[in-house]
Amino acid sequence: MNLEFQNFSSLPKYAFQNRYNEFEELKNQEPEAGAYPFDKMEEECGIFGLVSDENTDTFSLSQFGLFALQHRGQEACGITVGNDGKMYSIKDEGLVLDVFKTIENPETFMGNCVIGHTRYTTAGDKKKYNYQPFFAKNEYDQIILSIAHNGNLTNAKQLKKELEEEGVVFRATSDSEVILRLIQKNLDLGLRGAIKATMEKIEGAYSVVGVTRNKFFAFRDFNGIRPLVLGAIDEKTFVVASESCALDGVGAQYVRDILPGEIVYTSDNEEGLQSYLVKENCTNRICSFEYIYFARPDSMLEGINVHEVREKSGMKIWEQAPVEADVVIGVPDSGVPAAIGFAKASGIPFRPVLIKNRYIGRSFIIPSQEMREHYVNLKLNPIVSEIKDKRVVIIDDSIVRGTTSKRLVKILKKAGVKEIHFRSVSPPIIAPCFLGIDTPTKDDLISANMTKDELRDYLEVDSLEFLSVPNLQDILGSKNHCFGCFTEKYPVEKPVEEDLFQ
Amino acid sequence: MNLEFQNFSSLPKYAFQNRYNEFEELKNQEPEAGAYPFDKMEEECGIFGLVSDENTDTFSLSQFGLFALQHRGQEACGITVGNDGKMYSIKDEGLVLDVFKTIENPETFMGNCVIGHTRYTTAGDKKKYNYQPFFAKNEYDQIILSIAHNGNLTNAKQLKKELEEEGVVFRATSDSEVILRLIQKNLDLGLRGAIKATMEKIEGAYSVVGVTRNKFFAFRDFNGIRPLVLGAIDEKTFVVASESCALDGVGAQYVRDILPGEIVYTSDNEEGLQSYLVKENCTNRICSFEYIYFARPDSMLEGINVHEVREKSGMKIWEQAPVEADVVIGVPDSGVPAAIGFAKASGIPFRPVLIKNRYIGRSFIIPSQEMREHYVNLKLNPIVSEIKDKRVVIIDDSIVRGTTSKRLVKILKKAGVKEIHFRSVSPPIIAPCFLGIDTPTKDDLISANMTKDELRDYLEVDSLEFLSVPNLQDILGSKNHCFGCFTEKYPVEKPVEEDLFQ
Amino acid sequence: MNLEFQNFSSLPKYAFQNRYNEFEELKNQEPEAGAYPFDKMEEECGIFGLVSDENTDTFSLSQFGLFALQHRGQEACGITVGNDGKMYSIKDEGLVLDVFKTIENPETFMGNCVIGHTRYTTAGDKKKYNYQPFFAKNEYDQIILSIAHNGNLTNAKQLKKELEEEGVVFRATSDSEVILRLIQKNLDLGLRGAIKATMEKIEGAYSVVGVTRNKFFAFRDFNGIRPLVLGAIDEKTFVVASESCALDGVGAQYVRDILPGEIVYTSDNEEGLQSYLVKENCTNRICSFEYIYFARPDSMLEGINVHEVREKSGMKIWEQAPVEADVVIGVPDSGVPAAIGFAKASGIPFRPVLIKNRYIGRSFIIPSQEMREHYVNLKLNPIVSEIKDKRVVIIDDSIVRGTTSKRLVKILKKAGVKEIHFRSVSPPIIAPCFLGIDTPTKDDLISANMTKDELRDYLEVDSLEFLSVPNLQDILGSKNHCFGCFTEKYPVEKPVEEDLFQ
Amino acid sequence: MNLEFQNFSSLPKYAFQNRYNEFEELKNQEPEAGAYPFDKMEEECGIFGLVSDENTDTFSLSQFGLFALQHRGQEACGITVGNDGKMYSIKDEGLVLDVFKTIENPETFMGNCVIGHTRYTTAGDKKKYNYQPFFAKNEYDQIILSIAHNGNLTNAKQLKKELEEEGVVFRATSDSEVILRLIQKNLDLGLRGAIKATMEKIEGAYSVVGVTRNKFFAFRDFNGIRPLVLGAIDEKTFVVASESCALDGVGAQYVRDILPGEIVYTSDNEEGLQSYLVKENCTNRICSFEYIYFARPDSMLEGINVHEVREKSGMKIWEQAPVEADVVIGVPDSGVPAAIGFAKASGIPFRPVLIKNRYIGRSFIIPSQEMREHYVNLKLNPIVSEIKDKRVVIIDDSIVRGTTSKRLVKILKKAGVKEIHFRSVSPPIIAPCFLGIDTPTKDDLISANMTKDELRDYLEVDSLEFLSVPNLQDILGSKNHCFGCFTEKYPVEKPVEEDLFQ
Repeated sequence: MNLEFQNFSSLPKYAFQNRYNEFEELKNQEPEAGAYPFDKMEEECGIFGLVSDENTDTFSLSQFGLFALQHRGQEACGITVGNDGKMYSIKDEGLVLDVFKTIENPETFMGNCVIGHTRYTTAGDKKKYNYQPFFAKNEYDQIILSIAHNGNLTNAKQLKKELEEEGVVFRATSDSEVILRLIQKNLDLGLRGAIKATMEKIEGAYSVVGVTRNKFFAFRDFNGIRPLVLGAIDEKTFVVASESCALDGVGAQYVRDILPGEIVYTSDNEEGLQSYLVKENCTNRICSFEYIYFARPDSMLEGINVHEVREKSGMKIWEQAPVEADVVIGVPDSGVPAAIGFAKASGIPFRPVLIKNRYIGRSFIIPSQEMREHYVNLKLNPIVSEIKDKRVVIIDDSIVRGTTSKRLVKILKKAGVKEIHFRSVSPPIIAPCFLGIDTPTKDDLISANMTKDELRDYLEVDSLEFLSVPNLQDILGSKNHCFGCFTEKYPVEKPVEEDLFQ
Repeated sequence: MNLEFQNFSSLPKYAFQNRYNEFEELKNQEPEAGAYPFDKMEEECGIFGLVSDENTDTFSLSQFGLFALQHRGQEACGITVGNDGKMYSIKDEGLVLDVFKTIENPETFMGNCVIGHTRYTTAGDKKKYNYQPFFAKNEYDQIILSIAHNGNLTNAKQLKKELEEEGVVFRATSDSEVILRLIQKNLDLGLRGAIKATMEKIEGAYSVVGVTRNKFFAFRDFNGIRPLVLGAIDEKTFVVASESCALDGVGAQYVRDILPGEIVYTSDNEEGLQSYLVKENCTNRICSFEYIYFARPDSMLEGINVHEVREKSGMKIWEQAPVEADVVIGVPDSGVPAAIGFAKASGIPFRPVLIKNRYIGRSFIIPSQEMREHYVNLKLNPIVSEIKDKRVVIIDDSIVRGTTSKRLVKILKKAGVKEIHFRSVSPPIIAPCFLGIDTPTKDDLISANMTKDELRDYLEVDSLEFLSVPNLQDILGSKNHCFGCFTEKYPVEKPVEEDLFQ
Repeated sequence: MNLEFQNFSSLPKYAFQNRYNEFEELKNQEPEAGAYPFDKMEEECGIFGLVSDENTDTFSLSQFGLFALQHRGQEACGITVGNDGKMYSIKDEGLVLDVFKTIENPETFMGNCVIGHTRYTTAGDKKKYNYQPFFAKNEYDQIILSIAHNGNLTNAKQLKKELEEEGVVFRATSDSEVILRLIQKNLDLGLRGAIKATMEKIEGAYSVVGVTRNKFFAFRDFNGIRPLVLGAIDEKTFVVASESCALDGVGAQYVRDILPGEIVYTSDNEEGLQSYLVKENCTNRICSFEYIYFARPDSMLEGINVHEVREKSGMKIWEQAPVEADVVIGVPDSGVPAAIGFAKASGIPFRPVLIKNRYIGRSFIIPSQEMREHYVNLKLNPIVSEIKDKRVVIIDDSIVRGTTSKRLVKILKKAGVKEIHFRSVSPPIIAPCFLGIDTPTKDDLISANMTKDELRDYLEVDSLEFLSVPNLQDILGSKNHCFGCFTEKYPVEKPVEEDLFQ
Repeated sequence: MNLEFQNFSSLPKYAFQNRYNEFEELKNQEPEAGAYPFDKMEEECGIFGLVSDENTDTFSLSQFGLFALQHRGQEACGITVGNDGKMYSIKDEGLVLDVFKTIENPETFMGNCVIGHTRYTTAGDKKKYNYQPFFAKNEYDQIILSIAHNGNLTNAKQLKKELEEEGVVFRATSDSEVILRLIQKNLDLGLRGAIKATMEKIEGAYSVVGVTRNKFFAFRDFNGIRPLVLGAIDEKTFVVASESCALDGVGAQYVRDILPGEIVYTSDNEEGLQSYLVKENCTNRICSFEYIYFARPDSMLEGINVHEVREKSGMKIWEQAPVEADVVIGVPDSGVPAAIGFAKASGIPFRPVLIKNRYIGRSFIIPSQEMREHYVNLKLNPIVSEIKDKRVVIIDDSIVRGTTSKRLVKILKKAGVKEIHFRSVSPPIIAPCFLGIDTPTKDDLISANMTKDELRDYLEVDSLEFLSVPNLQDILGSKNHCFGCFTEKYPVEKPVEEDLFQ
């Protein structure tokens, strides 16, 4: 990595010192293992792009679009805008509204095309130079190309090695930069040609939006693993985003999902947004976990509403494993629609009695060991009177490590419930994802290590059931989607360990 | 060493300059009218106190307690701790977890008593020196007394004037400092005597927790307008907090609510927590709006669970004003329990189809005028398929300015609903609060300016109903509570305008 | 409003974090032994005070006065001003012009009296809370008394212990705070009475200026060890300062030196500046090293011009130890006047050929060991052509550790001089000072450990002479001055080691 | 100007905000006319370069070299180093020791070649992006070429326009960037070829040092207007610097001055430092003002010692204009050697009685108008006893605007001198410099607007004399040097006003 000191001089000295500390820190920075010890798979990234044929308020629209995708990543965000033939980029740690608030010259970010990214770390360590959008510059330090990527390449390491041998210099440690550098390297094939050449090289899951000085583009891998939808505000203003809720956020109409293997792009020669299929007739193998957990309930993915999938999963698991009980409760937020579906199908009343504290985000500082015990009820607190001495069905979207479920059971027991019937509306998670979801390794996946009965005993519940894979396929209306974490069969060849960019 | 550095010189120079700027800024600072233009009454403050007879982890416990009260104020927070005869205080802008995270010497804040405060501005302008806890110092710059206050005094201005004529120096502009200075001034009456003398002077709504170097105290006004509950972790460790959810947060058992006119305190002579009634047999006139909107659903206030009140209010308004409809929806979060109650009573299915973006908090920066129009669906987005062409009952906890309701109706219409039946599960708000709730003035209260029919037409809904005051009293089981914002009759004499500390 | 914010909360969060770090740092801070490894005794502190009977620009005048005293201390500076019955104080690390530049509200510092301090650490470690002026506050956090001190108490430790047993709280670790707290404690004796009581308690060297809310004062120890002069701008505006150059700096006329044992002060009852002798007929025993090294050449101390003393010392040492040579050079800056005197007396031409780099101040960062060798000529570089093959008399004001002299000889030899005749115009320094000068301990004083001949050989010079004590007394016209560092006989009893406040 | 935001993300948020403010500020920044209202021509820039055939401590050596050149510029400084095929650059506002102190990874700056720059603004406004060294990068954001320049081009504006028409992007507003971009553009001619092509294009005064990834170079304009000397530490380590005092600073032997029109450089094919004359037999026309005022007295320029020139000028003006007087004094620092020369020639004794405050650097903040009067004696204070009632010859190096001289006379009169005989040891300055010295315009040059007699009356002195041009030429041994400011005849054609890069 090259030190980039030329801008230091424009900083007040104290900022300068901070930056230096930063640098020193970065040099020694190791991936902070366990810094964010979630016992649940966490959100992946969200991407957003917009192109118009005239200058528009790309500042506000990208803010709205990324805000609507905030659930897909809260660590950092950024945008690159093309404004009158020049490109500007800004990115920083923080929530969308926080980062945009620091921009004091919004007019600089109002142009005719924009891409944005909201980030949760999946590949590449948590180093700050890995924030997106990535960009390439010319010899005069001007940005000429920028992309934002959601997904995970499976051959990034190999490609990076090849490129470096050709003299290409990398400035970050994320697989996404491989995509940037490949396009940059192939720009003499024309923009569409460069993207095509890139797609023919990279493997894995990728939904990408990008801009050059005067063009916009977006493309999706041949399996369509990560979502990417297309909308339009008017006949000249197009939007591409990870989920349709971002289209709602900018007042755009949903047009269709970008196809697996498709490039959409603007060009000098033709008006409007062009489409090009790098490969015809690809099968859509979108990640099923998007429906179960990641996507927002008001989003449509591949024409199917997420909320509806969740409600149906609750109905279906009642059919699959009925039980006598007094009350149904859901683990907020993603377990609630399923609980309502379960109640509807079973006639057992739904009670919204697990109260989630909304001010989570930062971790607690707990200096004394004994206090860690008190931690249990802080995020979820039950309304005791509604469940005391009752037979309770508790619905969660999934069971990953098992620790959250265990804690939940403890909370319910403390509240005096009579019976606990645990229902997961996804099948047992038995294998890690290497296509863009931050699943733990097999060792930490409890269903990869315990049978259902063992897990029931471990959780100390009266019954435990998982939605079956066929039932999930039935709800989604497809056996082609990626169910890799439940079946260990993936649409992409599983990479040798060392080729993963991690 | 005391944490309260008197020296500017101990700051790095740039901090110093910032501080100076700060000073300059403060000098010229006017209350930022409309800086946070909510169209809804917002949360008031939360207070928390804990005392033990030995050193405990007051750092963690106050963090947990304040975190559980975060919904009562997100602007700033702080704690004062008594540790081995010395007192330390820290307070800053930000959420509880953010502020505690900046504390690098947690051990300093581990002692035998602590008070904390989480703040939403009600009285006193938004100047930073108004953050709580307030404290008084001796001539050696050591803290000797500290309090945190929830509520609003109605004669603070007059009292401040009197005290200043006696030579007392005020350092902030909040009514809460009047309480501090009165106790400080009367300390030669003994602690209990000083509190009693203070309570006999101040008027209005006040729940207060406080500490001196070796004692803890809490007291509540003669009407018990703001809530204050007592709990115990063990027989020697007592907790006082605004709501019982904070007791859950620290693993304490609920004991009872502090009585109107009661002082609880520790003393040198007696073991444990003492109680003293400044006036006997006061009637409890707790704010009814706490149940409707402020308090967390899992809290118990005066023995009544908040969630239950809300669910009953939904059932009751169905009885009061039934309607034919296809679906019931609630405005998240506080309208949802009522919607579920309404569904239960009416048999019309409840659908959780208004999706709230959880990353609100900062305001949007919207440079271009036209973009402000796009703003509508960003906070609440409906699942269109669930309500399109349906007759919808929409339940909200209250209607204050009417702008939120208006926007909501617009969202529903855009989603294609057939009919809209709006139900507010509180009576019309016709008068401002001057006892601790940040209600707008009468001019901005839409129900003070429109009849129900006018409002129905303004909102463009098919029907509109408010829960009646008698029905609300029925649910709460009391006609004595404060219903001032619905009736303009208050438990405390309405102050002349200029005497309000604003 | 008082400038002394008690609230952390009024700082932007990052400042706050810095402050906290600061605090943590301070807690663990050890005196940084050898952080400023001078091989020369360094300047002590400078103090300045001004009082007028009406509001004047105390901001500018104290800036000018302290700027003229900058040579007495460059680590930090500060002022306390009385402005319309209120007191404001500011102090920070840095040079006078730097610190004053950061003050954004100069009008706050314009009043009728001011004291200031420019600091080089002598007693108390280098912790930042030891910056002066010191001040005491009342219970409302308002400053009521402030002092600035030059000198060193010899019984501070004992006094501090006594005061703490009486309940007095100290906030710093400097002997100067003992003076502050003693006056504060005795304020009920009236201001003059409190100062008198303080002077009767403290022992050692002290020149002090101070202010209360409406009064000004200054006093000097019974031996007058540290200088203190009185001047007047007009008949109502008086100035007290360490040296007369500060009077010149503010356009004041020199009146006289403050007497040993004298208090000058303003009072409510009498107009103008009052004088009071705590003890009559004290002998003036001012530090002789002030003339030799510390004071500015344009200053008058006790009626004698410093430059003149230095020039005479050069003439005298020629008489005392004549030598044949081709050229006389002086070590800048304090050796130059003596060199000119030597030239005048001897007829040997003076050449200004040692060029001093004026941008010294910060230390060099030298990562590689070998480079430390190159360090020699950076501060002093000779004009080789003027001294090559010449017999050179080199005059320095003193020889302390010997390392500077050794390095100087090396520079001269490298330049090709034929002979070196070294002359120190002070006697051999054989004993440390404990009265306000930062002399090294006896172990590091080279003349306490080597005879003149040994030192001559160590320095590798052709001859070496020191001005004799009688000759120095002759020049100063007094045998009463303090010559402790040359004779080990002090005007104050030498304290037991542990009673020194270090 | 292109916004360079990619690094923002690596800053803590507050730094980020500061940077933004910075950016905003820069956008609106106008040259701060009169921000530093010197009444004297100020120092120009200093440059330094070093090359070795192996890795050496270029960090320390460039620090030492620039420190020795600090008198040539105190606003900012920076270095670019070539370390193992990679290049790193750092630059910031501040003195050399301050800026180097902030570097926390000195090892990064230890390589085989380095260039450095210490800056006083001459051309280009005071914007921070104009700090040097300048550098060019490749498309991977890596530095590939860097230069530091002392002097002033006279056709920079025209060249910049031409280059921009060819598509070259400029990132700063200094004439020095034109040199960088021309070399960069011509790199396919080889390094020497590119420099030659550049020298054939640019006109004016330029001494330049530079580095590429593996080569070092330095060159000087065809008149040799700004100084540039060559030295050697050993047979493989060469140093190039503005003045020979920097050679002393790094322990290098003076070799010779770089010739007018010469390039020295390293190459892949040959060992050691190569020399190439772009034009043969150029006449050396070095700036005579370097000897009079700019250069350090211990420097040798073109084989002549600066101190010697100054002393001779004092002797010469005695010959030219003798006077009866009691005492000779010099204005520190550059007037002192001349005063000593005058004393030597005349027999009138020299007295070092003007005491200069060494802590100047920052400007005073003087809020009240009346206080500006007091300002007089702060920088220079006389020892009154030495000059009172005396006939004084006062020697200064030059008279530029006349305000300093006027103030000086005022100081002397206040001290009671009987007669003042003013001597300037440079001729009258009648024309501005456009070749690298920050002279005021003709309107502000007092000798361009007053005859000697008028000026004598204006200054209110008893006699006034300037060293004549022939006498100066005699001392310097050359009529070829640049005497433009005294004669208005320049070695370079005077540019049309608008072509100057200002």
